[in-house]
Amino acid sequence: MKADEEISQRFKIIVAYDGRPFSGWQSQPGGNTVQDILLKALQSFCPSISTVQGSGRTDAGVSADGQVAHFDAAPGWRMDAVSWRKALNSKLPAAIRILDAETVSPDFHARFSAEAKTYRYRIFTGEVLPPLVHGLVWHQSRVDDFEALLEAASLFVGTHDFRVFSAKRHDGHDEDRDTVRTIYSTKLVQQSDCECEIEFVGNGFLYKMVRFLIGASVEVVIRKREAFEIQDRLKSGIAFEKAPFCGPSDGLRLVNVRYPDSITP
Amino acid sequence: MKADEEISQRFKIIVAYDGRPFSGWQSQPGGNTVQDILLKALQSFCPSISTVQGSGRTDAGVSADGQVAHFDAAPGWRMDAVSWRKALNSKLPAAIRILDAETVSPDFHARFSAEAKTYRYRIFTGEVLPPLVHGLVWHQSRVDDFEALLEAASLFVGTHDFRVFSAKRHDGHDEDRDTVRTIYSTKLVQQSDCECEIEFVGNGFLYKMVRFLIGASVEVVIRKREAFEIQDRLKSGIAFEKAPFCGPSDGLRLVNVRYPDSITP
Repeated sequence: MKADEEISQRFKIIVAYDGRPFSGWQSQPGGNTVQDILLKALQSFCPSISTVQGSGRTDAGVSADGQVAHFDAAPGWRMDAVSWRKALNSKLPAAIRILDAETVSPDFHARFSAEAKTYRYRIFTGEVLPPLVHGLVWHQSRVDDFEALLEAASLFVGTHDFRVFSAKRHDGHDEDRDTVRTIYSTKLVQQSDCECEIEFVGNGFLYKMVRFLIGASVEVVIRKREAFEIQDRLKSGIAFEKAPFCGPSDGLRLVNVRYPDSITP
Repeated sequence: MKADEEISQRFKIIVAYDGRPFSGWQSQPGGNTVQDILLKALQSFCPSISTVQGSGRTDAGVSADGQVAHFDAAPGWRMDAVSWRKALNSKLPAAIRILDAETVSPDFHARFSAEAKTYRYRIFTGEVLPPLVHGLVWHQSRVDDFEALLEAASLFVGTHDFRVFSAKRHDGHDEDRDTVRTIYSTKLVQQSDCECEIEFVGNGFLYKMVRFLIGASVEVVIRKREAFEIQDRLKSGIAFEKAPFCGPSDGLRLVNVRYPDSITP
């Protein structure tokens, strides 16, 4: 046996999922999470794999085009990245797909190496919701100006304490006690007269944060809240008397996780 | 009671559905068809409604952006078109939506007045199928040239006997014994490098006909069949030794049904 077979090989995978049938990313005692199903598929090939680490959680109902995760195959396990992708896709339900797999150095960590994440929040404003987008959009027929929605969302760009735009986790794993985050940019992706996506790129997002950001932005557009109030709370960190809307998980999608060029592979 | 209340009012509705959860349009003893569910919703408001007539059937798994149907409300039944739309949407599952409703003359017939139908068939050619389009596309990674696919599909434009590009119904209701149909046009709608839709507009389509047309077109692109063979059979009507591919119902969508301007008030 060659010496380099003694070292376990780390793989980075890009995972896409339809969030609708699952209870979110993060493993739960009840199962039916993307992480649980993925770990089971990994273990069906390589039983010694004990964990698959994602870039972060996504809530129940949230979909992903490009969640990133890593896992370590057992030392000497002879399966290359393409084989892992194909093998996993043969085991996983169609609602979870491995889009890509590559070998990475043991320094790569899906969560701690992440530099930026891109989320998109999709809003449908027509009167009747088309069946094919049910569960994938926030149906908000009161929003009538996408440019104004982008303008409101852009209030959040910069480094702020986002405590009042987040929720506390109820499972005791509130790892986000440091509530300062940076939003790098926002963007409007218009798809039709009555459908758009607002994109948020940031260095990290607190629990339910994107849903509060879009909720507060919608409130500004429908004149339920003034823009200056948002700016004020971003500075002061003082809680709102009435918490902003929390957009439903339906419209949210993790599009991309960015890592430093130097770290992969 | 006024005299005109004695006459039943005919309504035309535009129906969109996600075909995945249903056993097609046409009523079946087992239920779970779009027509059955729609009739039940209609009867929950107006019990005397005995039928809702569609422009034609769609197979199990086929979706619709704009199926058209008509029904007759009981004489004197005071519900206008907008109220019908809202009432039906409040009863129907989210996978079936009434996009529009209007009153029409009793001469309007969703099936017999139809002038043209537009179907689109969606093909995904990338290696890994994104979860969010699962059940909505034909995953055909061997297709590598969308222009060539359109060219093959365009062989069908014109008036032909499409018998060898259709299937017999097994329920004894083979109403399509006249197998001559006209395809008015085809169109390529490209959505990305690895996804396209081929559109067929025609005066009517036989059972599984669009699925055979796209199947045969794919065969031409992947060099499983020569174009001249298709042209020959369209002229001669002689059965193929080996029937063409029948594309899965997954990729098919009824986009639109057109009626003469004169007939809809």
